[in-house]
Amino acid sequence: MSEGATTPKPPYYCVIFTSRRKPGIEDDYGAASARMMELGTKMPGFLGIESARSAEGFGITVSYWESEEAIKNWRTHAEHLIVQKKGRDHFYEWYESRVGRIERAVSFKSAK
Amino acid sequence: MSEGATTPKPPYYCVIFTSRRKPGIEDDYGAASARMMELGTKMPGFLGIESARSAEGFGITVSYWESEEAIKNWRTHAEHLIVQKKGRDHFYEWYESRVGRIERAVSFKSAK
Repeated sequence: MSEGATTPKPPYYCVIFTSRRKPGIEDDYGAASARMMELGTKMPGFLGIESARSAEGFGITVSYWESEEAIKNWRTHAEHLIVQKKGRDHFYEWYESRVGRIERAVSFKSAK
Repeated sequence: MSEGATTPKPPYYCVIFTSRRKPGIEDDYGAASARMMELGTKMPGFLGIESARSAEGFGITVSYWESEEAIKNWRTHAEHLIVQKKGRDHFYEWYESRVGRIERAVSFKSAK
């Protein structure tokens, strides 16, 4: 979760989820997040996930997928739908979710 | 920087930059980052930027652009090229930069 995702040669798809969490929901959010991670990463077509959150509660999570169909299947997964509603009702001040197609990628690793 | 970007109706383009910073480079990195923010956000076709970094040095920055041409112009900007090299030589243990086309977006704002 705190490292980069290893993804195949493009093209593939991404969901960029940016959000600000409400204060005081850490435990409840942590449990829901862990369960969604457990389920989502096992979905067909899942390629990887990267997530970073600042101390102020602003976070970015990017998940990578083989196809738009795979994204749709996860978005409409029954248990995920319940947690999405919980997110709107309890967890998030706001969020934005953007779906895109990755066209190219470059990576770098330091020699030292 | 610590808030979400307000972007137009898709399609538009994104650069997802995920990285792990080396320890002990905070001041140098901070100055370079501030300068790149100053320059990059004034480039033609720049739409917005979002950034989050965890305490462990793993970060995600997503910038949004009107076109692939706008991304190319920023990538090849003379001063940006110098800082990109500095990033490889000094700042980053690793990074991955992915360019994509945003096809759709949904946003949510809590009523309370």
